[in-house]
Amino acid sequence: MKRYSIASIPGDGIGREVVPAAIEVLTATADKCGFALDFRHFDWSCQTYLETGKMMPDDGLDQLRDHEAVFLGAVGYPGVPDHISLWGLLLPIRREFEQYVNLRPVRLLPGIASPLRDKAPGDIDFWVVRENSEGEYSQIGGRTGTGEDEIVVQQAIFTRRGTDRILRFAFDFARRLGRKHVTSATKSNGLYHSMPFWDERFAAIGGEYPDVAADQYHVDILAARFVMSPDRFDVVVGSNLFGDILSDLGPGITGTIAVAPSANLNPERRYPSMFEPVHGSAPDIAGKGIANPIGQIWSGAMMLEHLGEDEAAALVMRALEASLIAPDIARTPDLGGNGTTAGFAEAVRTKLLGF
Amino acid sequence: MKRYSIASIPGDGIGREVVPAAIEVLTATADKCGFALDFRHFDWSCQTYLETGKMMPDDGLDQLRDHEAVFLGAVGYPGVPDHISLWGLLLPIRREFEQYVNLRPVRLLPGIASPLRDKAPGDIDFWVVRENSEGEYSQIGGRTGTGEDEIVVQQAIFTRRGTDRILRFAFDFARRLGRKHVTSATKSNGLYHSMPFWDERFAAIGGEYPDVAADQYHVDILAARFVMSPDRFDVVVGSNLFGDILSDLGPGITGTIAVAPSANLNPERRYPSMFEPVHGSAPDIAGKGIANPIGQIWSGAMMLEHLGEDEAAALVMRALEASLIAPDIARTPDLGGNGTTAGFAEAVRTKLLGF
Ligand SMILES: CC(C)[C@H](C(=O)O)[C@@H](O)C(=O)O
Ligand SMILES: CC(C)[C@H](C(=O)O)[C@@H](O)C(=O)O
Repeated sequence: MKRYSIASIPGDGIGREVVPAAIEVLTATADKCGFALDFRHFDWSCQTYLETGKMMPDDGLDQLRDHEAVFLGAVGYPGVPDHISLWGLLLPIRREFEQYVNLRPVRLLPGIASPLRDKAPGDIDFWVVRENSEGEYSQIGGRTGTGEDEIVVQQAIFTRRGTDRILRFAFDFARRLGRKHVTSATKSNGLYHSMPFWDERFAAIGGEYPDVAADQYHVDILAARFVMSPDRFDVVVGSNLFGDILSDLGPGITGTIAVAPSANLNPERRYPSMFEPVHGSAPDIAGKGIANPIGQIWSGAMMLEHLGEDEAAALVMRALEASLIAPDIARTPDLGGNGTTAGFAEAVRTKLLGF
Repeated sequence: MKRYSIASIPGDGIGREVVPAAIEVLTATADKCGFALDFRHFDWSCQTYLETGKMMPDDGLDQLRDHEAVFLGAVGYPGVPDHISLWGLLLPIRREFEQYVNLRPVRLLPGIASPLRDKAPGDIDFWVVRENSEGEYSQIGGRTGTGEDEIVVQQAIFTRRGTDRILRFAFDFARRLGRKHVTSATKSNGLYHSMPFWDERFAAIGGEYPDVAADQYHVDILAARFVMSPDRFDVVVGSNLFGDILSDLGPGITGTIAVAPSANLNPERRYPSMFEPVHGSAPDIAGKGIANPIGQIWSGAMMLEHLGEDEAAALVMRALEASLIAPDIARTPDLGGNGTTAGFAEAVRTKLLGF
């Protein structure tokens, strides 16, 4: 029997609730499909930080290194500044393991209402490919001067290697999907150095894929177009920051960001990839057992696909969608129901076992 | 009779069509209200660049300096890279004249359908206050290394003075509106230096306005919330880049960015302020006489307000809204009609004269 070793990091807040719920579903799926997922749990979180001054142990990355994937809940909690919690855990994992692709589907699921008028499942269905390792997210810079005269410098670093590889991934991915249209997010009219470079590389790499259509928009108007004409996109590629914004806005137009998944991929598979929902730790509802586990389960499905277990991944998605339209299954409060995290996950598991 | 000297720069593409149309409306308004607008026209555009290598003459800013306002169409045309056209005209004007506020209403007009479900005029009605002079829009940085090893650095510069003054404007503006809620766009979890600083200043300045409620969101989730719950906002304040994105997304949720206006303000009135629609030069429809003039006319109304002609400004808006719901007035094609730029503007003018 094939076995996969998975590092699970529930993290903070509702991460501690949705991760175990999703693991129930994934384990049942593995059983049914004849492989095993060996989860090893890492209790790293803002709590760890408050106790030890660090988000994870010094050899944390080494502890993760030999796993085939990392299954992450959410990181961040009141009392620990975000830039501490993220730069102490999530971002080092993304970087150390060269997870330079952040991949997110923007797909309207059955049974979930879009805030956009007249949209049905199928009408919104595209992908955001986000550069995930460099660019605007940078610790280079600092503060100088004091008081009224203080000045803060924040540098963004774009490398040719980093830019080319994400663009190439986007074009390859579009080819693989058979939906051959890549849209690039730029802002070359305002960001004087980085974005003209990005555009140049987009044109160059695009030239290697004559069978894939390529276009580009400034990120401001592109954001507006997500709302005005979401049907025109197949694959949207953006820098770390632009991809971040667009891949929250995307789930926003599909009803709720509480259900969206993401994959942090090291496409070469030299290092583990990481799978996490788009939502955060949601301190306001943490501890109540009512968090929506869909984003975590869907992230699990993306993980199965990455592991090569396509059939199992498809099974999870089928069970998820079936549960969403089943009249007798209580959704969590964010979707207008009065169900619980555990209850919904159990329903998905039952559906899945019934197929 | 009071006279105001206005510099008009139609610029490129449809700018050359909507500016004259809007001027007809504004001139009629001034006549009716008993003041005069003396427009002086500056034919600066990408055409100028192609002929002279410059977007405007060397003493261009000096030529504008003594006007009370600048009325701009749009800049940018195929064949001239955006970062050339913008950094050669629009951005120097914003900076030289310390137009550090970019103010944009996000308001659903009667007769225009929002792409969001179940929204009527009144449901979406807030303001985006964007920092307009520094931050991410910077010419500092450059390229180093060659070929595969090339690296591009793009610096963002936030000054305490620049940050404080835009935040203070936002809080003052919320007070003035009587809608006392300011939301800040941040990304302190990713942008390590600039955004924690921005948050710090937001907290400090907010402290000076105990009567105004303050909250903040990361820009990614904030973008999603524009779509999911636009009714929760009164005044949203953001950096140059975040404000840019949010103030296109805002008009996106109100139906079409073709109708949104913007004001580039020097609140101290030491220098002229500039008024321009949010839309660009739209080369695809330029020259056909079918561009929607609403954004330009609405920008004109904001200009009148800035000049202190509040009554005239209100008159323009009333005529605009009345024209939008009048069954016999042909809208431009972007709004589903078959009308022309000149025809619609003339209809607004007629309505206005009839009041
Ligand atoms: C044209 C461009 C430089 C400009 C900007 O980003 O400032 C435009 O998008 C705007 O918002 O006025
Ligand atoms: C938590 C934060 C640092 C993170 C990001 O911006 O990358 C999150 O928003 C995401 O998109 O995964």
